[in-house]
Amino acid sequence: MAQYSAEVDGVFVALADPTRRGVIRRLGRGPTSVGELAGEFPMTLPSFMKHIRTLETNGLIRTVKAGRVRTCVLNRDRLALVDDWLAEQRRIWADRTDRLERLVTEPLEEQS
Amino acid sequence: MAQYSAEVDGVFVALADPTRRGVIRRLGRGPTSVGELAGEFPMTLPSFMKHIRTLETNGLIRTVKAGRVRTCVLNRDRLALVDDWLAEQRRIWADRTDRLERLVTEPLEEQS
Repeated sequence: MAQYSAEVDGVFVALADPTRRGVIRRLGRGPTSVGELAGEFPMTLPSFMKHIRTLETNGLIRTVKAGRVRTCVLNRDRLALVDDWLAEQRRIWADRTDRLERLVTEPLEEQS
Repeated sequence: MAQYSAEVDGVFVALADPTRRGVIRRLGRGPTSVGELAGEFPMTLPSFMKHIRTLETNGLIRTVKAGRVRTCVLNRDRLALVDDWLAEQRRIWADRTDRLERLVTEPLEEQS
């Protein structure tokens, strides 16, 4: 559970930056070399590579080197952690709504 | 767009911590006083209040003071920003799948 929580932390940290979200969006269209990606984001290469490492460390992308070219690939499964977390919240909200509805309707049923 | 992006940044920052996610989960069951909430998380009150402020600053909760009691209320709408972002990614992935399918099926159709 603690391990899972740390993984969720890392995914949210990785998503809390517009450049990193931009890389994820771009890689959604298909694997792309680091060089091509870097050209699309207005910053120095070392700054850009920091974002790539944050994404890779937190499991949102992987990088594969072939010869001199390093290609980034999106790991869609990792975003499922965000989906799962949101789904858990919705279940909690639905349970609450059910409880509130019972609170409102049960006294009425007793009267009838 | 820059404003929207900063808001999304803030939501992901707020979610990147297990205590803050725990508060969101707890408030999903209904509004709760700061005192009651604080008792459920093993840390000093000043540390806990920092998390509350981070959640409030980023719009995930609001707090309402009545007499001496401050109550926290979840702002579910704010989590819709996460839903929207995920939905955008899924659209990009679906477009890519469509393009790949056309790539595979069109040459076959030309042969028939």
